[in-house]
Amino acid sequence: MRAVVYRAAGEVALAEVPRPTLVESTDAIVKVRLAGICGTDLHVVRGDFPGITPGTVVGHEFVGEVVEVASALRRIRPGDRVMAADFTACGHCRWCERADHWHCGQRAFFGTGTAFGPPLAGAQAEFVRVPHADQTLGVMPPGLSDEAALLAGDNLATAWVAMERAATAAGDCVVVIGGGAVGQLVALSAQAVAAGVVVVVEPNAARRAFARDQGSLAVAPDAAFAAVAQLTDGDGADVVVEAVGTAATMDLALELVRPRGRVVSVGAHSAAQWRFPLARAFDEELSVGFAIGDGIRLRRKLVRLLTSAAFDPTVVVDARGTLADVPALYRQLAAQERLKAVVTP
Amino acid sequence: MRAVVYRAAGEVALAEVPRPTLVESTDAIVKVRLAGICGTDLHVVRGDFPGITPGTVVGHEFVGEVVEVASALRRIRPGDRVMAADFTACGHCRWCERADHWHCGQRAFFGTGTAFGPPLAGAQAEFVRVPHADQTLGVMPPGLSDEAALLAGDNLATAWVAMERAATAAGDCVVVIGGGAVGQLVALSAQAVAAGVVVVVEPNAARRAFARDQGSLAVAPDAAFAAVAQLTDGDGADVVVEAVGTAATMDLALELVRPRGRVVSVGAHSAAQWRFPLARAFDEELSVGFAIGDGIRLRRKLVRLLTSAAFDPTVVVDARGTLADVPALYRQLAAQERLKAVVTP
Repeated sequence: MRAVVYRAAGEVALAEVPRPTLVESTDAIVKVRLAGICGTDLHVVRGDFPGITPGTVVGHEFVGEVVEVASALRRIRPGDRVMAADFTACGHCRWCERADHWHCGQRAFFGTGTAFGPPLAGAQAEFVRVPHADQTLGVMPPGLSDEAALLAGDNLATAWVAMERAATAAGDCVVVIGGGAVGQLVALSAQAVAAGVVVVVEPNAARRAFARDQGSLAVAPDAAFAAVAQLTDGDGADVVVEAVGTAATMDLALELVRPRGRVVSVGAHSAAQWRFPLARAFDEELSVGFAIGDGIRLRRKLVRLLTSAAFDPTVVVDARGTLADVPALYRQLAAQERLKAVVTP
Repeated sequence: MRAVVYRAAGEVALAEVPRPTLVESTDAIVKVRLAGICGTDLHVVRGDFPGITPGTVVGHEFVGEVVEVASALRRIRPGDRVMAADFTACGHCRWCERADHWHCGQRAFFGTGTAFGPPLAGAQAEFVRVPHADQTLGVMPPGLSDEAALLAGDNLATAWVAMERAATAAGDCVVVIGGGAVGQLVALSAQAVAAGVVVVVEPNAARRAFARDQGSLAVAPDAAFAAVAQLTDGDGADVVVEAVGTAATMDLALELVRPRGRVVSVGAHSAAQWRFPLARAFDEELSVGFAIGDGIRLRRKLVRLLTSAAFDPTVVVDARGTLADVPALYRQLAAQERLKAVVTP
């Protein structure tokens, strides 16, 4: 089959690879109907995370049709139109029991090498093997679009978990650092959840313009402190969501949050250390949380949102192509010429 | 009047000082009936916080009787038996409006120099001047003991805010780092709130024994990791409350908390920097919050608890004396020979 594979740091290519087969009794094989390219893929391909080997099929966002199931599956059947979480979880351990799926000992993350578990071939391909398919996959209801379902498995789940972790409340001023696909979805989620002032902090002018078109305020990083101070009478934001994944943007988050406010980071951090201002965090009673989207735990909630409410995350999708376009789309996404790309095999 | 004053780093003494008088229109003068000595006082006297000058009256925990009120007070009257928060807040600004009293621009902290606001004479004295007395003071209901009310203004408010900030839930495993008065009250609060396993981590054997007598488990710091791992099948604690106030105990908190668990620090931190493990906090979805007891916001809730439920925080009080005993009590508390001392002027 055709698939996008990692070649070397900074390089992906379309290749012919063996079509995946069932390995474990809880596997399914999914014919990919739509695959996404995510900021995390850019990190992976850049070499920010260790442990990816040449030839690895990349990509962790997809929807498709089940073509084969192993013996132990109970919920997922051949022919099902399915959405997917971007990682696997067993569904039976004590972590899964309390819906902490990311911490399941059976976790594997599609297409990212060994940074987040054992290697698992990705989904920018014609077919993908899905471990623990009863948990990792969900049957899509009629009326749910492929693009919306794809986003619900990763970027939108990430945005939503930020709202949950921050306990975002009615009227909150929410600052989002980073205007990539996740940041823009955080901003839309914050508008929906808090109905307060939402400010996207982003250096790229086109991304700021997009945020404004979608109803948020938008400022460049060097203007953020003054803008947030003016909006909040000098207090600072109630909630800051860091959606970049660097120590520098964490520092900025602490600058922008108000005393007794909440910082939640959903950026994929690879830096080992961050110089944390301890005495200041104490005196200002700050809280800093890290959260990872859980497309299993949040699936039903997001499906309800996407099928019953006027909430459309697909506005972030501004590039569509085929597998053959993927190498060029990686370059365009890395150059920030595009916000979010999806491809059909 | 007689009062305990700061002389030099490490030295307090009983002295004759002028009796305080009304200064602002929202002041009250309180005749102190009971004053406490707190771990924060030990920090202050040791010189951990900047800006205390010789002659400063120390102490920030007290209950007493109102003897004089200025013109603008509406709630507090002469003759009232009152409990007090350990800091002042105006009650009218936007911070007070949302019950973030610690961040009020009029905040002053009794008896601690300039570390937390403008200087304000402390309460280890026969009389104390109380700014913003309508907010800082609360009239004590019949049936509330002086010792319980004193604790509710500081140490118990601190313990309770830790439970709130950690969103401590039924059955949680709560680890408390530090078995001083605050740590012991956190442990008792956690038993009451979570009814789960509570573990006090404390190097002092007598303090561990006290924690055990009060129904918690207790371990030395070097045994904490193994003990918590064994109790939680290797997961780690749901909640860790850091009640010491150092970077090293923050590190230990992160070692003991489970993935997706919550660390809340109520220690009084003076270290500017802490080396925060960024990538690990992301992968484990940790949250770290800092909280300061608010004896104004929590007053009604704590009074209800102390007058209506079988919750007795006064078990931590193991030293009672007069003002003349205070210098010796500071030494005994610093040597950890005592847990909590209160004195009558």
